Amino acid sequence: MRASRFFISTLKEAPSDAEIVSHQLMMRAGMIKRLGSGIYTYMPMGLKVIRKVEAIVREEMNNAAAIELLMPLVQPAELWQETGRWDKMGPELMRVKDRHGREFAIQPTSEEVITDVVRSEIKSYKQLPLNFYHIQTKFRDERRPRFGLMRGREFTMKDAYSFDRDLAGMQQSYKVMFDAYTRIFTRFGLKFRAVAADNGAIGGTGSHEFHVIASTGEDALVYCPDSDFAANMEAAEAVATGERPAASAALVKTSTPKAQKCEDVAALLKIDLKQTLKTLALTVEKDGGGKEYFMLLLRGDHELNEIKVGKVAGLANHRFSTEAEILEVYGCVPGYLGPIGTKAPVTVVADRTVALMADFVTGANEADYHYTGANWGRDVAEPAIVADLRNVVEGDPSPDGKGVLAIERGIEVGHVFQLGTAYSEAMKATFLDENGKAAPLQMGCYGIGVTRILGAAIEQNFDDKGIIWPASLAPFELVLCPMGYDRSELVKEATDKLYAEAQAAGVDVIVDDRGLRPGAMFADWELIGVPHRVVIGERGLKEGNLEYQGRRDTEATAVPVADTINFVKAKVQR
Amino acid sequence: MRASRFFISTLKEAPSDAEIVSHQLMMRAGMIKRLGSGIYTYMPMGLKVIRKVEAIVREEMNNAAAIELLMPLVQPAELWQETGRWDKMGPELMRVKDRHGREFAIQPTSEEVITDVVRSEIKSYKQLPLNFYHIQTKFRDERRPRFGLMRGREFTMKDAYSFDRDLAGMQQSYKVMFDAYTRIFTRFGLKFRAVAADNGAIGGTGSHEFHVIASTGEDALVYCPDSDFAANMEAAEAVATGERPAASAALVKTSTPKAQKCEDVAALLKIDLKQTLKTLALTVEKDGGGKEYFMLLLRGDHELNEIKVGKVAGLANHRFSTEAEILEVYGCVPGYLGPIGTKAPVTVVADRTVALMADFVTGANEADYHYTGANWGRDVAEPAIVADLRNVVEGDPSPDGKGVLAIERGIEVGHVFQLGTAYSEAMKATFLDENGKAAPLQMGCYGIGVTRILGAAIEQNFDDKGIIWPASLAPFELVLCPMGYDRSELVKEATDKLYAEAQAAGVDVIVDDRGLRPGAMFADWELIGVPHRVVIGERGLKEGNLEYQGRRDTEATAVPVADTINFVKAKVQR
Repeated sequence: MRASRFFISTLKEAPSDAEIVSHQLMMRAGMIKRLGSGIYTYMPMGLKVIRKVEAIVREEMNNAAAIELLMPLVQPAELWQETGRWDKMGPELMRVKDRHGREFAIQPTSEEVITDVVRSEIKSYKQLPLNFYHIQTKFRDERRPRFGLMRGREFTMKDAYSFDRDLAGMQQSYKVMFDAYTRIFTRFGLKFRAVAADNGAIGGTGSHEFHVIASTGEDALVYCPDSDFAANMEAAEAVATGERPAASAALVKTSTPKAQKCEDVAALLKIDLKQTLKTLALTVEKDGGGKEYFMLLLRGDHELNEIKVGKVAGLANHRFSTEAEILEVYGCVPGYLGPIGTKAPVTVVADRTVALMADFVTGANEADYHYTGANWGRDVAEPAIVADLRNVVEGDPSPDGKGVLAIERGIEVGHVFQLGTAYSEAMKATFLDENGKAAPLQMGCYGIGVTRILGAAIEQNFDDKGIIWPASLAPFELVLCPMGYDRSELVKEATDKLYAEAQAAGVDVIVDDRGLRPGAMFADWELIGVPHRVVIGERGLKEGNLEYQGRRDTEATAVPVADTINFVKAKVQR
Repeated sequence: MRASRFFISTLKEAPSDAEIVSHQLMMRAGMIKRLGSGIYTYMPMGLKVIRKVEAIVREEMNNAAAIELLMPLVQPAELWQETGRWDKMGPELMRVKDRHGREFAIQPTSEEVITDVVRSEIKSYKQLPLNFYHIQTKFRDERRPRFGLMRGREFTMKDAYSFDRDLAGMQQSYKVMFDAYTRIFTRFGLKFRAVAADNGAIGGTGSHEFHVIASTGEDALVYCPDSDFAANMEAAEAVATGERPAASAALVKTSTPKAQKCEDVAALLKIDLKQTLKTLALTVEKDGGGKEYFMLLLRGDHELNEIKVGKVAGLANHRFSTEAEILEVYGCVPGYLGPIGTKAPVTVVADRTVALMADFVTGANEADYHYTGANWGRDVAEPAIVADLRNVVEGDPSPDGKGVLAIERGIEVGHVFQLGTAYSEAMKATFLDENGKAAPLQMGCYGIGVTRILGAAIEQNFDDKGIIWPASLAPFELVLCPMGYDRSELVKEATDKLYAEAQAAGVDVIVDDRGLRPGAMFADWELIGVPHRVVIGERGLKEGNLEYQGRRDTEATAVPVADTINFVKAKVQR
């Protein structure tokens, strides 16, 4: 490519609405252009990166025997009603009526359509397994679109759907996709981590998220450096080990005026925060009417994990108790609650760590008072329920028993999901098994946020000059920067020769023939993030050398003219 | 590709709603699957053809220095309001509201968005010319979607937009696109014709349509076999040559009971239809109130061209007169109108051919009577206006004076358009010229109906067995049909070797390893339309031969095993 025939448009300053670095740099590098809230035109420089992402995804999906098709964007409401998602999905699902008043969804994903395709195409177990995918524009009417391509409304996604005859087959298809995703993210040249994820409302038997590691990531990833364990914070099990120590202190009711938080109590009493209990009052409205009250107990330094709470028996539909309920049940204002001496009966649900504590400090159910030296069994009944209620913290034992946990931050760019038969049962998508009996298809679904990859890659790879693309995603692998392309015949000839050589060698090369001054030219390419640069100058040419500089290098290397392309080629080897 | 890893799904019968052959064959060959009215899933076999169309379009657009980007599907109403198209476009424009009640269009084309991009990016004449394109999903809420991909609602289009500093530059950009289109359709391997088109409501200074020639086409194309002249019927000028003959017959009022149509009059009077006049009564409502009446005259065997009528001075807003108006103006029921002796004054607009007629037969403005032997000047005043009002017919002189016209039918698959400054003026998209003065950008737009190409190619190339793809568009160039792949080690080995050879030679090959019986296997591939087939059988192998058959061949050719791939390769040479 010649820069004069491409469209390059860089900015010194990012627009003020660009809050994060990837959004800022993509705007400054002229990769995207805002059309509306969460809606972007992919400019030529950005589209080129998207195409590289798509090509790698497509190749690995094909290698994994997934078959590409293309489903429509505008999908009849009737299909979405079959699975109930027409009602279940809120305003995030963009809905539209045609000229006849018929309702349609602008698709955010395609489970319904692919299940509809498959239920009419698949008759027999002999046609299975099957895996269909497409790479396509999606629309989700996010409440608060932001961060450029990271949380847009219109975006590109690869979504794949596998169909199997039984659970074992589905798990095999899932593994094939998991492995394909691992190859895809490896080929992107990004640091990433696959973590076990919570299945969420969609149900199913298992799922993993693929995250690009970046300190700016929205998700906390938990992993064990000494084993394979890795999970999203939502799903990471917190293990409590060891025995409960014997009681060694007496129960003392202690004045703790205005100390409602554990931190305040610990500071006031000059004790370790780990000796305190954090109390949360929950209410569950019973189906037949009436209410049930629960008290959650966490160690003072731990954080509640809402998803884990929802999984405790009886707590699926909990809510936090109101102040009126708290006064009624505990006879005390919030901030001083505890398991000892509640006014009305409550079910105590202790985190695993709490169940192993002794001599702890907890609210006395009386304003401005706590108990110190509290002990299970002696001062209060053993907790009715012991469960995993909290987020893990660095240093927690790994659930596989092979070390301790570490935490890093990531950006979710892929998700693989064992769907089971939720969709196939709702939509009556069955096949005939060997005995001629109809059975629902076992499904999996597998997504990659194609356009989001760009944002995630940048969040992981940038410096104060701009983007640093991994070679496999860079809009161009090599930029040739001639000094005086229009003025010096020597430079022009050498540049054109080098350009032809690079093309012949299969290097994705752009020559900057725009006639910019060196400073502006270099700044553009550093901002855009092309990983390899060769400067062609008259002086160097006369000495037989060109100047090579990698995007992360702090200075240039002189390379003999004749060796230059081989030198670069070795560096871009994919 | 191995058929066992692809998805092949053929049907014996087409669904009853498939009215035309391309729709029937695409459904039967498993290329598309209906999701809703005018909305199709592109199945793997169909998508493969679409990708081949896209690849050729992309390559030639890039060669023509057009730059690819990707504009959003969901576009803010505000932009469409700037050009007035939000109101001007009817229900064909799909409109949608987001969760905040803001209005958006699901784009049918992208003039507004690209003009918005360019007005913020282009400051100076130095940045021009520019041509941006994208290949993308469009939606048009057609009143009556039909014919499969030929008139769908959701479809894929390549749309390009050029920006120039002046008219000459724009016309140059237009020519570059015209030439690129010519290369694209040539590479498709389709018989096509570029014809001058009417500019329609969009205005501008010129446009051409590209049509795939097919007897089932909706459009009539007029061309001169002896010159370059070619135009859509709507736009083809009808020329009248020669002199008007002298009057030789006397004017006679003749009884023509119940003969209201020219054909009936000619039959009754035993004269040539070409001696009769066809009369059409028009009304124009004047701006200040009141009406003006016009009488259009065509030769009895000619057809009215409505678009040409609209271009006659004073007739832009015409309508057909009502029966009440006709009684009032002509004093006669419809069917016997003519220029001689109307009750009220009317403006006579004669087609060019009519102005050269003598001794003609025309209505007498009296029920059941015509005049014979009528002559201009002698029996009635010369027509007030003489204009081109009719469709050309085969044998008409070519407007360039170089022969006579022929007519064939075509399917519109491309349109190039000189837009001028209509959009740039409405949207204030200007640039600074050499003198630092702001001027509106001169625009062109250029569309190719990517998915429609599939339908058009099939309408041109099919037989009773199925589709006959040109090699450049075929889902696969070559199918290998082993006889007993699972039973014969000899056949399996030879097939696998051939498959590897074909791949190495860059031939897009599929091997049918599904284990079907020969009849079913051959029928599938003839239906799908793969242009080259090689059958690998034990008997032939023992004799050292394979059976080659081209899709249009009536019988197979024996080819030595070792030569087979070279033999095929020579045939698929693109």
